[in-house]
Amino acid sequence: MKKLRLFTPGPTMVPEDILLEMARPMEHHRTAYYKDLVKQCHELLQYLFQTRAQVVTITGSGTSAAEAAIVGCCPPGHKALVVNNGKFAERWVKVCTTFGIEHTTLPITWGHGAKAADIKKALDADRKIDTVILVHSETSTTALSDVEGIGRLTRERGALLIVDGITAVGAIPVKTDEWGVDAYITGSQKALMLPPGLAFVAVSDRAWERIESGKMPMLYNDLKAYRKSLQEWDVPYTPAISLVRGLLPVLKGIKERGLEAIWKETAMLARGTRAAAEALGLKLYAADPVDSVTAVVVPDKVNEATLRKSMRDKYGFQIAGGQGELKGKIVRFSHMGYVDAFDTLGVIGALEMCLLGQGFNLTVGAGVAAAQKVFAEAMTH
Amino acid sequence: MKKLRLFTPGPTMVPEDILLEMARPMEHHRTAYYKDLVKQCHELLQYLFQTRAQVVTITGSGTSAAEAAIVGCCPPGHKALVVNNGKFAERWVKVCTTFGIEHTTLPITWGHGAKAADIKKALDADRKIDTVILVHSETSTTALSDVEGIGRLTRERGALLIVDGITAVGAIPVKTDEWGVDAYITGSQKALMLPPGLAFVAVSDRAWERIESGKMPMLYNDLKAYRKSLQEWDVPYTPAISLVRGLLPVLKGIKERGLEAIWKETAMLARGTRAAAEALGLKLYAADPVDSVTAVVVPDKVNEATLRKSMRDKYGFQIAGGQGELKGKIVRFSHMGYVDAFDTLGVIGALEMCLLGQGFNLTVGAGVAAAQKVFAEAMTH
Repeated sequence: MKKLRLFTPGPTMVPEDILLEMARPMEHHRTAYYKDLVKQCHELLQYLFQTRAQVVTITGSGTSAAEAAIVGCCPPGHKALVVNNGKFAERWVKVCTTFGIEHTTLPITWGHGAKAADIKKALDADRKIDTVILVHSETSTTALSDVEGIGRLTRERGALLIVDGITAVGAIPVKTDEWGVDAYITGSQKALMLPPGLAFVAVSDRAWERIESGKMPMLYNDLKAYRKSLQEWDVPYTPAISLVRGLLPVLKGIKERGLEAIWKETAMLARGTRAAAEALGLKLYAADPVDSVTAVVVPDKVNEATLRKSMRDKYGFQIAGGQGELKGKIVRFSHMGYVDAFDTLGVIGALEMCLLGQGFNLTVGAGVAAAQKVFAEAMTH
Repeated sequence: MKKLRLFTPGPTMVPEDILLEMARPMEHHRTAYYKDLVKQCHELLQYLFQTRAQVVTITGSGTSAAEAAIVGCCPPGHKALVVNNGKFAERWVKVCTTFGIEHTTLPITWGHGAKAADIKKALDADRKIDTVILVHSETSTTALSDVEGIGRLTRERGALLIVDGITAVGAIPVKTDEWGVDAYITGSQKALMLPPGLAFVAVSDRAWERIESGKMPMLYNDLKAYRKSLQEWDVPYTPAISLVRGLLPVLKGIKERGLEAIWKETAMLARGTRAAAEALGLKLYAADPVDSVTAVVVPDKVNEATLRKSMRDKYGFQIAGGQGELKGKIVRFSHMGYVDAFDTLGVIGALEMCLLGQGFNLTVGAGVAAAQKVFAEAMTH
């Protein structure tokens, strides 16, 4: 028997009952049924983002929602500071360049997150900056930025804060209103444990002012049209209906479990995985590690491509490699969505076997035992 | 018992086996498995569009692909002629306005399609126009435009032809290469009988030249990135994996049945529906009716909202009303995708019952019999 288990930081595994929910006969979106679905999802999305603001749902990849938020919030006359500390951060710099948004890039060493002090320095140096764009959990490097501290600062300065929360929302603490984030972005295929195809932005009143004031060249990704439709629980363009139908039970499940409990469980999975890596003599990549994904440095003499291939082909575990300059150098394990401690013991077990297969020197069971110790401590009380 | 049957011109019904295919456990998109899926789909999409050109798949509504094609093909220095003969045509005018594309709008009375003579006159009047944008099957009015004739003209003039084929491709004759269409657009939720969430554009070499030459403000909808990825059967942004997995068997099924046979069957369903309407003393709306959707004028004394509500609530048939200025005046029946003659007899039966319910004077069974006559003639040979 070989079961397929996704440990990639998106897409993640989709619960069986959600798969079947999405397989129900097609429904039409210009109906009372669908309006009610939109309304219920919206209320639960507000819980997910911890906000009273409107949360827009776009049919598209996370990139579409990030583009919508960044471009919408940066019409001419405004200037952005874009933190660049990984592959996804780089993409948001590219959005600024592509749309001719005036901006300064703040490069931060890969593996590190943005800290309030870095942002403060940059804002002090250029008083024209009135928008800060950063990635909460940089999936490519698994680095965590201090959104809470930075939010305190941007509110003091009257700047807008746009945060890519694609591998943060629903996995690690995200408090949109309390922290003062003006546009928080996520996608369906991470902690929301759905297939890819939906993207979300929670938009603050301050951000709406900016968006409504500007006239940027966008139609499909123009948040104004979504806002207008949302007033009647409607959508401007035909939505990915089957995915939205899956979204409702996912969000209900998240509310039932409670965000605090989910954040705690995700953190425990990350702690267990980090303990396992250490016990196996492996190094972690990130200096500021996030709890939604763990990056492990591939040891010398171990071939990364072979490692991932054997994880998948021999044992059914799909893990992720590195991107950009990290290609071949790290492997990444997701802790988001429909994954638990016992799945995680499994992936560590398979990792041990594959490392052994490449002649890497380790104590068989050391990784699994280290993770199990973390899990047992957390789960037997 | 009350079965739900969608007769809306998108979304249409999804075959049960395709629903289950999409309910299979999630797979990752950076894998050999997914590359092979992309490759197979691409080959079959070329058959669907009748083209040797590249066909780009975008995660989004049809509007995203139309925006991608129009904006990509109209960088500064070019001028477009946009036919406006319905709600969707109007949206493409709005794309031109939003992105500052130099254009002339050619208004055509609703219910009518664009003809080569209209386009010729407009091109003669303004030699600067080098791009023509129109809707093949204008879903809002059910009017058919003469893409073949217009394609002959645009090739003679060296102009690009961009066609919204959202309710045309896979339903009625579409011959991208033979007709010389440079960008043909469609969506997943019409003749492709999938849930909404995927959009497609077949892009000619001439169109690629234009797209590559220009630098328009777009990232998510920038076709250049999709083209580059497609060379390695890859995608630039996380795709709607479950929908793409449903796409493959749908396209295989279309190839097995053969496009000619599908076009013939769609035309037969439209003929049967039109015959039924006539037999019931109902008027058709379109002057140039398309075969993928039929619009019937709601008679005086019949309330359109009540009619649609009773169709749905009493008998389970979801039909569409009119949009914009046609709201309350017409009802529309789709002939696309997973719908056959026997489903169509059903919807006509329900229509008769609902008209009777509002005191409309008709001969019970006259509509059903008229459609049955058309179907029997076509299907018993």
